[in-house]
Amino acid sequence: MDFTVDFSEKENYYLIKVEGEIDAYHSATFKQKTKEKLSEINQSKFVIDMSLVSYIDSAGLGAVVSLLKEARNLKKELVLVGLQPQVRKIFEMTKLDKIVKILDTTDEIK
Amino acid sequence: MDFTVDFSEKENYYLIKVEGEIDAYHSATFKQKTKEKLSEINQSKFVIDMSLVSYIDSAGLGAVVSLLKEARNLKKELVLVGLQPQVRKIFEMTKLDKIVKILDTTDEIK
Repeated sequence: MDFTVDFSEKENYYLIKVEGEIDAYHSATFKQKTKEKLSEINQSKFVIDMSLVSYIDSAGLGAVVSLLKEARNLKKELVLVGLQPQVRKIFEMTKLDKIVKILDTTDEIK
Repeated sequence: MDFTVDFSEKENYYLIKVEGEIDAYHSATFKQKTKEKLSEINQSKFVIDMSLVSYIDSAGLGAVVSLLKEARNLKKELVLVGLQPQVRKIFEMTKLDKIVKILDTTDEIK
């Protein structure tokens, strides 16, 4: 299955759009590319659009946890948007929804 | 809540017994201590007894994934035993049960 991560600068935030499954095969790529942007890009808010992410496994959750730590170290904010119901369910079961801000759409970003 | 990790040498394997919740508060301790043993102890099979683990969150799953990678690097085997049903459910939902060997009891270890 295809997996893509696109990056784009918005006025108030930096957008990371992921498409595919964030699993053991793709989580390293996702983590590495996003970490690079977190340190390189001079913006304080990073938004990961997950509306095209159909599944996340344990390795993917580990990648998100690692990115949250990195963002905190860099005093930057990481926000997730558009989680599909089955992905949100996994976030809820593993309580990842308690430690990362999750919004329905990018319209809610201030 | 109390969290403990006990280590003991068995004839055919090295036993790591965890008690409590492997969550954001405890996963770093669990990961670090277990990593130390993986590299220090001259045994090829490491068994994590999780029968007294009532919950694992995203950070805990990340720790397990990280330990699996470490074990693979060191050419050692990591086996989990005695998962409680609610913990096994989280392993199944995040497909962690596909990448780590899980046994019901230590009796099954050869």
